[in-house]
Amino acid sequence: MKTILSSFVFTALIGSAAVAQQDTSMLDRIYKTSFYDGQAYDNLRYLTKEIGHRIAGSKRAEEAVLWSKKLMEEMAFNTVYLQDVQVPYWDRGMKEEAYVLPSREPLQVLALGGSVGTGNSGLSAEVLEVELLSDLKKHGDAVRGKIVFVNKPWDESIVETGAAYGLNSSQRSRGPAEVAKLGGVAYLFRSLSSSRIDDYPHTGGTRYVEGIDSIPALAISAVGAIRLSEILKENPKSKVFIRNTSQWNGVANSHNVIAEWRGTEKPDEIITIGGHIDSWDIGEGAHDNGTGTMGTLDAIRTLMKLGYKPKHTIRLVFYMNEENGVNGSMKYGETAKAKNERIVAAIESDAGGFAPRGFDIKASAEQVQWIQKEWKPLFEEKFWVSRFLQGSPGVDSGVWGRHFPNTIMFNFRPDPHRYFDLHHTAKDVFEAVDKRELQSGVAAIASLLYLVDQQLDLLQ
Amino acid sequence: MKTILSSFVFTALIGSAAVAQQDTSMLDRIYKTSFYDGQAYDNLRYLTKEIGHRIAGSKRAEEAVLWSKKLMEEMAFNTVYLQDVQVPYWDRGMKEEAYVLPSREPLQVLALGGSVGTGNSGLSAEVLEVELLSDLKKHGDAVRGKIVFVNKPWDESIVETGAAYGLNSSQRSRGPAEVAKLGGVAYLFRSLSSSRIDDYPHTGGTRYVEGIDSIPALAISAVGAIRLSEILKENPKSKVFIRNTSQWNGVANSHNVIAEWRGTEKPDEIITIGGHIDSWDIGEGAHDNGTGTMGTLDAIRTLMKLGYKPKHTIRLVFYMNEENGVNGSMKYGETAKAKNERIVAAIESDAGGFAPRGFDIKASAEQVQWIQKEWKPLFEEKFWVSRFLQGSPGVDSGVWGRHFPNTIMFNFRPDPHRYFDLHHTAKDVFEAVDKRELQSGVAAIASLLYLVDQQLDLLQ
Repeated sequence: MKTILSSFVFTALIGSAAVAQQDTSMLDRIYKTSFYDGQAYDNLRYLTKEIGHRIAGSKRAEEAVLWSKKLMEEMAFNTVYLQDVQVPYWDRGMKEEAYVLPSREPLQVLALGGSVGTGNSGLSAEVLEVELLSDLKKHGDAVRGKIVFVNKPWDESIVETGAAYGLNSSQRSRGPAEVAKLGGVAYLFRSLSSSRIDDYPHTGGTRYVEGIDSIPALAISAVGAIRLSEILKENPKSKVFIRNTSQWNGVANSHNVIAEWRGTEKPDEIITIGGHIDSWDIGEGAHDNGTGTMGTLDAIRTLMKLGYKPKHTIRLVFYMNEENGVNGSMKYGETAKAKNERIVAAIESDAGGFAPRGFDIKASAEQVQWIQKEWKPLFEEKFWVSRFLQGSPGVDSGVWGRHFPNTIMFNFRPDPHRYFDLHHTAKDVFEAVDKRELQSGVAAIASLLYLVDQQLDLLQ
Repeated sequence: MKTILSSFVFTALIGSAAVAQQDTSMLDRIYKTSFYDGQAYDNLRYLTKEIGHRIAGSKRAEEAVLWSKKLMEEMAFNTVYLQDVQVPYWDRGMKEEAYVLPSREPLQVLALGGSVGTGNSGLSAEVLEVELLSDLKKHGDAVRGKIVFVNKPWDESIVETGAAYGLNSSQRSRGPAEVAKLGGVAYLFRSLSSSRIDDYPHTGGTRYVEGIDSIPALAISAVGAIRLSEILKENPKSKVFIRNTSQWNGVANSHNVIAEWRGTEKPDEIITIGGHIDSWDIGEGAHDNGTGTMGTLDAIRTLMKLGYKPKHTIRLVFYMNEENGVNGSMKYGETAKAKNERIVAAIESDAGGFAPRGFDIKASAEQVQWIQKEWKPLFEEKFWVSRFLQGSPGVDSGVWGRHFPNTIMFNFRPDPHRYFDLHHTAKDVFEAVDKRELQSGVAAIASLLYLVDQQLDLLQ
């Protein structure tokens, strides 16, 4: 027994060492190619500067779809196609206006995505400030006729800014209905900004509930929220004037953009990779999510340039409408489910283009441990990518993944410090992206894609 | 035996769990204090905007010294004092000028620190381009009368940009003497820039060798180097005109700034923490090294604010003259050695103020393993700080550490992607620092300082 065991262990070690050596060499080539020949940054420039922001249903969203399709067609994919997606089209209208009365001191605001308008003449009302919607109860009838101002500061002590965002984001979505139910006339929400010294309002989706009045809902900058709170302390009878002319324009035809690189060994087993191509309608959608789309595309381009032949079919998906409906990922999931497809793994990038830190992994604890043992050492010391933790998939993978509960999913995690300074703001522009950080992320994603494709059997 | 062992293990586990719980709670408080009440960013604004760049020997360097001393005196240190340091004072003179002849196409250049000048009328000569100084041999007599242009591109595929810098930095320092020895009239060195699309020259120290002529030495931007190389391919007889009026102005009196926070249990055992306060004479010395000085000071302020009482004496040192002489750290080491001081640990910050990633550790492999096992879990998941590897101390600790070979040294490592875009350039300004990243680094350093102070006995 001893001899047999030793021999087995010996063989396994040799095999493992050879695989590790091959992987190390491949990752070196991937990083070299991404840093020297990567096109993510140049493609991002086009997407942000030539096309610009691209809310679902808009002309520019369709321009981004057609341009993305063309980019993919120029590559060595076997198939490139559009998948029809019906999306609600919301239009912001004129630039919003808000100020305090009687001083007319201006406040920086943005309509929340999906908000109805105030009408051209705007509205003014007294303001009821609360920290959280749950505080409304105790104000009872005092809500009636007021603008409700939810002024919950960001928890700056949380390094993982995504978690800090998650603490308050439901206040944004639930606000208008809860306020309207109690007779409030508008909703003013302190922006989900990681900085107190930021005068940029951050937009983001909100929603109404059938049977409850739809009232205008706007985000106010963090600096504006702090200032307004001071004003209300001095004079609780101060009014605020707001005007926004946003409206829903029905349903538009739009698309997911999909490209497939056929697997050589298991063509029916699919690895889905990508991110959403739509953005909010301000800034340029650079970190959210130009970097995710241009980055995942470039990761595949990197492997193609190296002459790689995937075992599994690699399917790149640019989802439409993540920001205000997730209709693209719903459609993708329903279609894949109806076709009874085998989607064995997924990689999503939708957390910005800052320096790569790792991947959150939706998989069993044992699988994550295996990844920490086998893959993390390939990245950690040399490439500064070390975070391989059990966690949630991205929003789009999460949505279509309801049909594919057993799919292993990876959510790319860049450095979180700066993302919520610019998320959903006018500051999310091309200039906020660093080329070296972006291409380092492309290399990390391409390396993970390579490892998933090569070693998925070992992982399962 | 079984019972005794179990009981021992049980006690050890309880003890360890309690310590871990206490540490976790302390780190939470440190992070909260740094993010909410940190002053590193505001202090950095003063240092960079009100004082500005501060090369050793300059008036502004002394202004930085006196202002730093005042900052420290406002804190709860037991002693604050200046340590005399003699420094060489080099002055850049007028803005440098360089262009190609006959086209007069301009090139962006900066004199290397320590360079002699060309004189007011400048000089022009044909250019001999090589990739490395070692290539000069094969050109023999052709070097005579020429400007030697070392055009070695940065290795962009190395994520650890400090290592890429190290590959070529000796070309910068050795160049002038090696070129002069062969009769060259000036040295033009491709900037140590991590970007090919950067038209900013990066300065940095160079040196002469006694008995060999001192010739002017300048850094050319990466974009300029690529362009000049193209021009030379088209017309190898092109000349370059350069003019710089830099010169040495003898020796100046300057200072290290030192503050001590007396230990309550082991006052004679010293933990040295700090970074260099001087900078190059362009930009504002923000990441190099305003963040390191203002960051380590704020780390101590954070612990003081929390009412912490250190076991060991914590000594904050702002070293003078790291950039062009390391006379400050030499003086610090000689003085401490002469007094037979016991410096038991050191922490240095001199690699920028980007998002914190960890610490390089000069210690035995066993000690580093212990740190990885005991301290890394306190930082990794929650605070995104995960790099605890055996490595080099910072430059200043390394210099004085020659007298203290057994001192455990920690070198703060922020994210390396962007540092060498702006290192030693006009781009190294306050605006290039992100407040959240900086204060996250302050918290990481304060947390490490706390752990070193509390658990140094366990580590040794």
